[in-house]
Amino acid sequence: MTQERRDAPSAARSLVRTTDEDAVRLVVLERPEARNAFDKALYLELSGALAAAAADPAVHVVVLTGSGGSFSAGQDLKEMAALVTGENADPEAAKGFRGLMDALCAFDKPLVAAVNGVGVGLGFTILAHCDLVLVAEDARLKVPFAELGVPAEAASSVLFPIRMGWQRAAEVLLTGKWVGAQEAVDAGIALRACPADALVGEAMALAKQIAGHPPDAVRAIKRLMMATQAPLVAAAREREDAAFAELLGSAANSAALDRFGETGRLS
Amino acid sequence: MTQERRDAPSAARSLVRTTDEDAVRLVVLERPEARNAFDKALYLELSGALAAAAADPAVHVVVLTGSGGSFSAGQDLKEMAALVTGENADPEAAKGFRGLMDALCAFDKPLVAAVNGVGVGLGFTILAHCDLVLVAEDARLKVPFAELGVPAEAASSVLFPIRMGWQRAAEVLLTGKWVGAQEAVDAGIALRACPADALVGEAMALAKQIAGHPPDAVRAIKRLMMATQAPLVAAAREREDAAFAELLGSAANSAALDRFGETGRLS
Amino acid sequence: MTQERRDAPSAARSLVRTTDEDAVRLVVLERPEARNAFDKALYLELSGALAAAAADPAVHVVVLTGSGGSFSAGQDLKEMAALVTGENADPEAAKGFRGLMDALCAFDKPLVAAVNGVGVGLGFTILAHCDLVLVAEDARLKVPFAELGVPAEAASSVLFPIRMGWQRAAEVLLTGKWVGAQEAVDAGIALRACPADALVGEAMALAKQIAGHPPDAVRAIKRLMMATQAPLVAAAREREDAAFAELLGSAANSAALDRFGETGRLS
Repeated sequence: MTQERRDAPSAARSLVRTTDEDAVRLVVLERPEARNAFDKALYLELSGALAAAAADPAVHVVVLTGSGGSFSAGQDLKEMAALVTGENADPEAAKGFRGLMDALCAFDKPLVAAVNGVGVGLGFTILAHCDLVLVAEDARLKVPFAELGVPAEAASSVLFPIRMGWQRAAEVLLTGKWVGAQEAVDAGIALRACPADALVGEAMALAKQIAGHPPDAVRAIKRLMMATQAPLVAAAREREDAAFAELLGSAANSAALDRFGETGRLS
Repeated sequence: MTQERRDAPSAARSLVRTTDEDAVRLVVLERPEARNAFDKALYLELSGALAAAAADPAVHVVVLTGSGGSFSAGQDLKEMAALVTGENADPEAAKGFRGLMDALCAFDKPLVAAVNGVGVGLGFTILAHCDLVLVAEDARLKVPFAELGVPAEAASSVLFPIRMGWQRAAEVLLTGKWVGAQEAVDAGIALRACPADALVGEAMALAKQIAGHPPDAVRAIKRLMMATQAPLVAAAREREDAAFAELLGSAANSAALDRFGETGRLS
Repeated sequence: MTQERRDAPSAARSLVRTTDEDAVRLVVLERPEARNAFDKALYLELSGALAAAAADPAVHVVVLTGSGGSFSAGQDLKEMAALVTGENADPEAAKGFRGLMDALCAFDKPLVAAVNGVGVGLGFTILAHCDLVLVAEDARLKVPFAELGVPAEAASSVLFPIRMGWQRAAEVLLTGKWVGAQEAVDAGIALRACPADALVGEAMALAKQIAGHPPDAVRAIKRLMMATQAPLVAAAREREDAAFAELLGSAANSAALDRFGETGRLS
């Protein structure tokens, strides 16, 4: 039994599509023309979709994936540049990121990621907030924070070392290297790699296996797992936000954003 | 030089057999007719055996194993069912589990596990309290909490993510899947897999290697290692106990126990 | 562009040689006649070199290695023996170790280790304070604390379990076994193994890659990563120091030091 719907807050085009199947809600990021980069609208829609899934007793497990061959390009750099230059900047834009972080930190049902393609920045760091991560064999992950002149975000400064070990976390965060699917599995940030065409099916099957257990017990287990790391994550977010406020708009950050604006590339 | 004895609190049959050899105490669970499941008596005897080993200066290291082809089936589900239905329930039964947890959390000498067969529930989660775990190549491990409608226990909600990484811990705790010996090693909950007939010998050899070092230094190292995780474990136990009190006897839990009572199987 | 210099506090022979190249400072331990064991002078010089690198805006990343085929033999056991017997003991000697720990805990730029040979004691535990560790394929690591009758040091009681997992940390700390290069990588305490003759070159290349990013962002990332573990490390150091004070000079420790004084070997 499949139900499809769109969580559109208004008549505007929806950027998140959801489908329910056997107590599993599939949430698809649908901004393929920007490789599912998070602008303010996508932040708000995904936050709303998570809150709705948490509140709906018919949803036991959520699967998150991207449309159009990308998982997510992370923070929309045009919006970041607008924040820095003040041109066309939305003073509310930073709330989008914080709201999604709040939604992820409050989400107490199992969250499965099906990483269907490139994940950059938040498209990588969000995986540290997911319980079970399946990656397509051709997916690649990267955080460009250092080259962008900004600090780590989304609590990755604490969660990447915990998930991947200090050595790999330091390499990923400090060099900005690309991480392939098998490397993500070896590092412990993903559970296993799947052929691209089987990815969402395998993620749904895993989610349904969990969704078949009594939901109160499943939710209690997820809550108990989160409880230990919650204060670490909260403290890391505060430190990261303070460091971000300090470095956003620095000479190095502005130069990197200009370069991106001109070439569409960071380096 | 080998000394064998039984820590019997009374004239009743002893469920734990101990043997001393070169400053290593081998502790064997001996309730093979119930696959070494923990009923109140076994909880009390193992707790007592650990306390005795901690207090005995001639014991430097303890090795824990099971008899009769199983390591441990975990909590005796007949006793859990009696707690739920109130039939033949021993109001003191819950103290058995808590007492064993207290004994494990206080045990400040190296604890080696030789997992000689199936470990289910506490028979799996107890391994996160052991320092060095050797598993027989044909051993299998599983926690059936979710399907039983109960939360994680024995501080596994914090120790499984720490020992195995979030991804594998989430898979184990949320799906209830079977984990093989090599997978347990790859996950980091076990040090290595051994042929079944060499298992206890290898565990004893490893224990004797440690027992040959100055015991005060060995004990200091174990205490220092425990100190960081002790408050995390204590907090997790409290949260888990509260969640357990809430879910024990729920409709889902009662149905699972009934099914087990009728079929001898959980699923 | 390469600049070489020696951080000599006085006219005495310098035990640390530094070379700058593309915003990377290479720091070489130069006490090869004692396999780069840490006596008071080397503790002070390395602490000073780290403080100088932290303060110098032209240095973005530091690479640490040893000269003469060893990485470091750790604490100079002749100085430890002098502390125990009181013969020729320098009452200030313990400050050397603490000062180096303080310098490592305060060092907020990326620290890369090129482990060019044997690392024993602090020559192993110091790696848990490095962000990226490359090991020569023939390097070997070991902590002889248990056999020496002393507790774990340099916060290894907390950092070894975090870096290597509990099982491997317990084996390393409790048995004192030798760990080979590939095993160090598998355990997660090192990033990768390199042919000995390529080691420093690869470490420098990795460091330069990081040093090419905006240094304020790089430093912010390192600081954010350290922030979570800093209180754990500080608490572990206090506990370890207290345990060390208790066990230093014990009968077992004195006997081990005497054996070492007579044979040049611990076991």
